[in-house]
Amino acid sequence: MKEAGAAVSIERLRSRIASLGRIGAIGATSASRPAMSALDAQARETVRSWMEEAGMKARVDAFGNLIGRMEGKEDGPVLMLGSHIDTQPNAGLYDGVAGVVGAIEAVQLLRDSGEPPQGPVEVAVFSDEEGCRFDKGLFGSRGLAGRLEEGELDRTDAQGVTRREALLTFGGDPGRFAEDACSPGAVKAYLELHIEQGPVLESLNASCGLVTGISGPLWWTVELRGFAGHAGSVPMAMRRDALAGAAAVIAGLQELLRGEEGSPAVGTVGSLHVYPNSRNVIPERVRFTVDLRDMDMSRRGRLERRLRLLIADKAADNGLEWDLVVDTDSEPRYCDPDLMAAVREAAAEAGLPLPELMSGPFHDALAMSHVCPYAMIFIRSRDGISHNPLEYSSPEDIAAGTELLARTLMRLAARPPYGEGGRRDGNRQAEKL
Amino acid sequence: MKEAGAAVSIERLRSRIASLGRIGAIGATSASRPAMSALDAQARETVRSWMEEAGMKARVDAFGNLIGRMEGKEDGPVLMLGSHIDTQPNAGLYDGVAGVVGAIEAVQLLRDSGEPPQGPVEVAVFSDEEGCRFDKGLFGSRGLAGRLEEGELDRTDAQGVTRREALLTFGGDPGRFAEDACSPGAVKAYLELHIEQGPVLESLNASCGLVTGISGPLWWTVELRGFAGHAGSVPMAMRRDALAGAAAVIAGLQELLRGEEGSPAVGTVGSLHVYPNSRNVIPERVRFTVDLRDMDMSRRGRLERRLRLLIADKAADNGLEWDLVVDTDSEPRYCDPDLMAAVREAAAEAGLPLPELMSGPFHDALAMSHVCPYAMIFIRSRDGISHNPLEYSSPEDIAAGTELLARTLMRLAARPPYGEGGRRDGNRQAEKL
Repeated sequence: MKEAGAAVSIERLRSRIASLGRIGAIGATSASRPAMSALDAQARETVRSWMEEAGMKARVDAFGNLIGRMEGKEDGPVLMLGSHIDTQPNAGLYDGVAGVVGAIEAVQLLRDSGEPPQGPVEVAVFSDEEGCRFDKGLFGSRGLAGRLEEGELDRTDAQGVTRREALLTFGGDPGRFAEDACSPGAVKAYLELHIEQGPVLESLNASCGLVTGISGPLWWTVELRGFAGHAGSVPMAMRRDALAGAAAVIAGLQELLRGEEGSPAVGTVGSLHVYPNSRNVIPERVRFTVDLRDMDMSRRGRLERRLRLLIADKAADNGLEWDLVVDTDSEPRYCDPDLMAAVREAAAEAGLPLPELMSGPFHDALAMSHVCPYAMIFIRSRDGISHNPLEYSSPEDIAAGTELLARTLMRLAARPPYGEGGRRDGNRQAEKL
Repeated sequence: MKEAGAAVSIERLRSRIASLGRIGAIGATSASRPAMSALDAQARETVRSWMEEAGMKARVDAFGNLIGRMEGKEDGPVLMLGSHIDTQPNAGLYDGVAGVVGAIEAVQLLRDSGEPPQGPVEVAVFSDEEGCRFDKGLFGSRGLAGRLEEGELDRTDAQGVTRREALLTFGGDPGRFAEDACSPGAVKAYLELHIEQGPVLESLNASCGLVTGISGPLWWTVELRGFAGHAGSVPMAMRRDALAGAAAVIAGLQELLRGEEGSPAVGTVGSLHVYPNSRNVIPERVRFTVDLRDMDMSRRGRLERRLRLLIADKAADNGLEWDLVVDTDSEPRYCDPDLMAAVREAAAEAGLPLPELMSGPFHDALAMSHVCPYAMIFIRSRDGISHNPLEYSSPEDIAAGTELLARTLMRLAARPPYGEGGRRDGNRQAEKL
């Protein structure tokens, strides 16, 4: 195997990220490319030309995904790399894009190595990862993984355009969905390079990190109900103040999670509404959300039980009625131990430190995890900021992540396509997280 | 002095409250009589007839107040009783009304006693106590007390009617404001009977209570500013969560106030807004109000200092910036010790228990406290509910409060009008609250 690291072209990565940033640009550090829009199609054509430059043959599948393919010595299960190029409104320039240009760069380096892969390699640019246009994301990757749901094509955007119409305009074809969804065992492994969108790597002074898995959130809506009264005429001991109860729960939740030091468990109350929300009326009713995430389901279960007890306790302490609705209860999707080992070996070879961390946000890898083992490499995000014009990852960090991806790809590409005994469980958890 | 108690007519009180309840009625237990509306004027005319029935001569002053007067043996400073008959939208039937019919009943009993008062006695039905029409209340009592502010007549209601126009229609006269405002020493004492609008008397199983004063609220708006981030990608230790900080403050405020057991001090966060208020985004900014009330200013000052420290502490603990705006800082207005003693004597005479309590809400007495000593008697409110069709005080409790008012009036009416050495400080605090 040649030295891949030396060959990563920072300049090519930088200029390609800048090229995509000009499509839908809003100022120098921001772009908007709504999923399946004309700008999205224009960006896809740009990426197609880079794929061809890297020796791949590109196609658009039924879901609007752009897939570049390099044949291997034999046919067989595909080694797939991927990410996306659609954006949030007024987004930064790196989310998704860094992973796409990194994947093409990795295949370029594989070709430059002169050693063809044992089996086929593909780079997927998944359609509509962000989900903001039709309020449901991971469209292309869920399509490929055969996980689209009833009625998805009837969802409309703010202008009343259906996803079906948008997909047809974008070159997709609902009539070919079944044909283009990947069959069991068709993808051998999926690797995704992505910016972290959080502050962990920055705090560890590391350019890249190895993802242990994508945590599934537990989402609750909690309502506490007390009794309104004049803020001046009801003594403290006689109050049934729903906001005082909610505050005690939120403060307790923070204490509980802070107590899990060293674990990736996080708990957030992001949204809260008070009724009647008047300065001299004791709050009668408060509704708030809870978002709880962890990679360790037994710990998450324990935290969940303690949170329920906390709510019951603080409600009783304030004379409140309460109820709790579970809006979402997703399981974590674990990165594959063998693929993680390959990334670790690549990092050791390149002399790169490789801290490990959980992914809170979703990625296309989440959908792919249902059909194949997967691994993810994160690139440091400045100040942990994402979905914002301040989003930034340095060319050096992106190059380091790309080098890791390329080295990992070359290790895997050197293995015979059927060498691993066919399809494996896509959600195998490592012994120790 | 004759036995006043025996002569209170529960039936007259009940039928008069019901009569006013039919003017602007919304169902059986609710009425809306916006200040200075045609309904308000109709109700005022009804009350005028009762005043005349009780032997008073009635006039409407420049502020739209209806004032009934019974002359005394001599002229001199007035003994004034009063309350109001305007209402909140969809209000109950007792707020203000109970005090007005009680005051007329007390004067009726004074006349029935056959012993004319030493000096003049007046019953005031103050205009626009509630303040909801022009978003500023106590209009009539502040007018009488010479405390109207610049521009008050230019305030408009939801229909664009100015207060000037409404007042003129209602029989007031801005040109006579200076003439009708009471001169120093003109009112010897002010007594007001009112429903409690809180749950204290009910909890003490007492039909009536003696008010120690009207607490002035300290009103703050507090803003905490942290840093937004994805709820899944920022570890707990790296967060600057504005809502977690606010929750710790609110929970701490409740603890602090609960610790002041046995004191009337109350603290409330009634209004709170979260930005961006999205379930998977760590709150960047929270703005909330604080309402702090107490009769003891040194204790209120101590609580205020501890609250500021609490905010600073929880902000630091969460890495938040904060600021605090003082929206209102009112001093308590204390009931007069001599008048309170007279009410206590009346209660002892009538064999009524008389717990003492603070008034959180404002009343016309607040404005009057700036020109004369005052006292207030509260009537038990069922469930502490007010400004609501569920507002209720029993005829028996209203009669008991009226008896106390009548007995107090007769004690004071028997004193020579100048016997107390003229005008006294209207905000003299008793030694012990």
